[in-house]
Amino acid sequence: MTYEIQAWIEQLRSGDARVLARAISTVENRASGWSELLKALFPHSGKARVIGLTGPPGAGKSTLVDHLARLYRKEKRTVGIIAVDPTSPYTGGAILGDRIRMQEHFSDPGIYIRSMATRGSLGGLARTTADVATVLDASGRDIVLIETVGVGQDEVDIVRLADITVVILVPGMGDDVQTIKAGIMEIADIFVINKSDREGAERVEREIRALQSLALRQDGWTPPIVKTVASEGAGVSELAAAIAEYEAYLQTENLALKKSVQNWQERLVEMLRDAMLENAREQLGDGNLARLAVEIAEHKRDPYTLVEEIAGRTKAGGST
Amino acid sequence: MTYEIQAWIEQLRSGDARVLARAISTVENRASGWSELLKALFPHSGKARVIGLTGPPGAGKSTLVDHLARLYRKEKRTVGIIAVDPTSPYTGGAILGDRIRMQEHFSDPGIYIRSMATRGSLGGLARTTADVATVLDASGRDIVLIETVGVGQDEVDIVRLADITVVILVPGMGDDVQTIKAGIMEIADIFVINKSDREGAERVEREIRALQSLALRQDGWTPPIVKTVASEGAGVSELAAAIAEYEAYLQTENLALKKSVQNWQERLVEMLRDAMLENAREQLGDGNLARLAVEIAEHKRDPYTLVEEIAGRTKAGGST
Repeated sequence: MTYEIQAWIEQLRSGDARVLARAISTVENRASGWSELLKALFPHSGKARVIGLTGPPGAGKSTLVDHLARLYRKEKRTVGIIAVDPTSPYTGGAILGDRIRMQEHFSDPGIYIRSMATRGSLGGLARTTADVATVLDASGRDIVLIETVGVGQDEVDIVRLADITVVILVPGMGDDVQTIKAGIMEIADIFVINKSDREGAERVEREIRALQSLALRQDGWTPPIVKTVASEGAGVSELAAAIAEYEAYLQTENLALKKSVQNWQERLVEMLRDAMLENAREQLGDGNLARLAVEIAEHKRDPYTLVEEIAGRTKAGGST
Repeated sequence: MTYEIQAWIEQLRSGDARVLARAISTVENRASGWSELLKALFPHSGKARVIGLTGPPGAGKSTLVDHLARLYRKEKRTVGIIAVDPTSPYTGGAILGDRIRMQEHFSDPGIYIRSMATRGSLGGLARTTADVATVLDASGRDIVLIETVGVGQDEVDIVRLADITVVILVPGMGDDVQTIKAGIMEIADIFVINKSDREGAERVEREIRALQSLALRQDGWTPPIVKTVASEGAGVSELAAAIAEYEAYLQTENLALKKSVQNWQERLVEMLRDAMLENAREQLGDGNLARLAVEIAEHKRDPYTLVEEIAGRTKAGGST
């Protein structure tokens, strides 16, 4: 580790918000030194509780996360929030407005908020989110809240890296939202019915129960259903209690480590895939890639054979 | 090429729907021989016009695709439909109900419909969709329609492989759907405002025009806006005309090949990444992966250094 990185890490762990912002940007943008930084930070990580919160657009996630963060602050716990918006692949920043509002709201340095949006990367959003969570974790934040819009595979990948996953639903969602729910029902450790003062809250609860009765979890945990009205702060302490209860359950059953091992199996393969992508790009080179793409587009060359040939050349020995 | 595969391809190209179904399943499930099959099929592909259609849940995509398929059939063109549902990561099949209905609807063998859902694969849905489109193309279908729910990066990746991309919007979408639109606005060659008899259609049109005035396309094409009421079949022939017009534009400007070259550059890199990842997985082996994940979860090993080491070993020489 260079002296520079060591000094950086000391500042970071002292709680300096500007240094934290710089470290996150370095990791997020894959700027010079990002990999060295993560290597140096990793041994300091693993202490924070990472909570993922997801739900359909308009479910009131930001407001709920806002209240949850305040509650943890009252308990003197420091909080890092990562707000991920995978629905903005090119333009990004759609969620930024909310976040700026929230930043103004909290002058408290014990809450750090960071917005992220896809940048047309090859499915790298979950990976980057995980790395940013590692930075927040290593910087000494007690709680890391990852908030994302739950509509597709990206979001499932993002919240899956959390220790605890909260799925937020709202009454009055149409049949299409039923479809959306199908994907995220299975990753919920806790359900929240937000805007529960609205008509239809009972129906959503019945639907969740019906789905639960169809598919029992392997770990024996039955995800509780918490009703909230986030705009008024109602039900937030009940949500925090449910989170604490699941946390305790994870500990007694030694499930926390098991879950972490499972997550790391998947993350390792994903990290390896990204590294391989780098190898593949290097191997092809820009000029070569353009030439080969023309030959394929003109149907003079078959891409399946080509890829097999190149990949065949990159097999190597050695063991780890 | 084995005799078996050659016989298979002859049957496939004769229009046999059962053989087509088997070929698609082979490719979709990466069943034995899938790679050989694609290699043999590739030289026969490149003749179909691939049209991608995407839009938010409830926009009426299936109904519109249904009508468009009938219209092409009246022109004696054969149609293949791939209905992709990336919002069903685990359970899949949410869209199947519609598809079964549609299958019953068309006893016409000139229309072939296939549903696909994510299976928690590592971002492989776009890749598989592309391969299935190649099978349909090589089997001699004149038109391949790819229909997907447009809410995230997955869908952008899926429709990007099409020659022509149609983005379907509906009036009365809230602010959250504005967010969704941000991502897909930039990939539209043609806009459809479906359910255009509803209040707010003019507003959606104004919004599209406003966004277009902000970002001009590099190719000089201004995506037209077609208004439809898919449930009544209204506007479908206008949509087909807009598609034909863009097709003609692609030809005169020689943009079709340019677009295909660009697509293949991206697909090649992704294919190579997947192949190299297979190599890496082989290298790790299941037992090794589990052991390493435990070491990382216990923070005895840093994953960033580990991945660098493994990736470093799979670099190789040679040129193509």
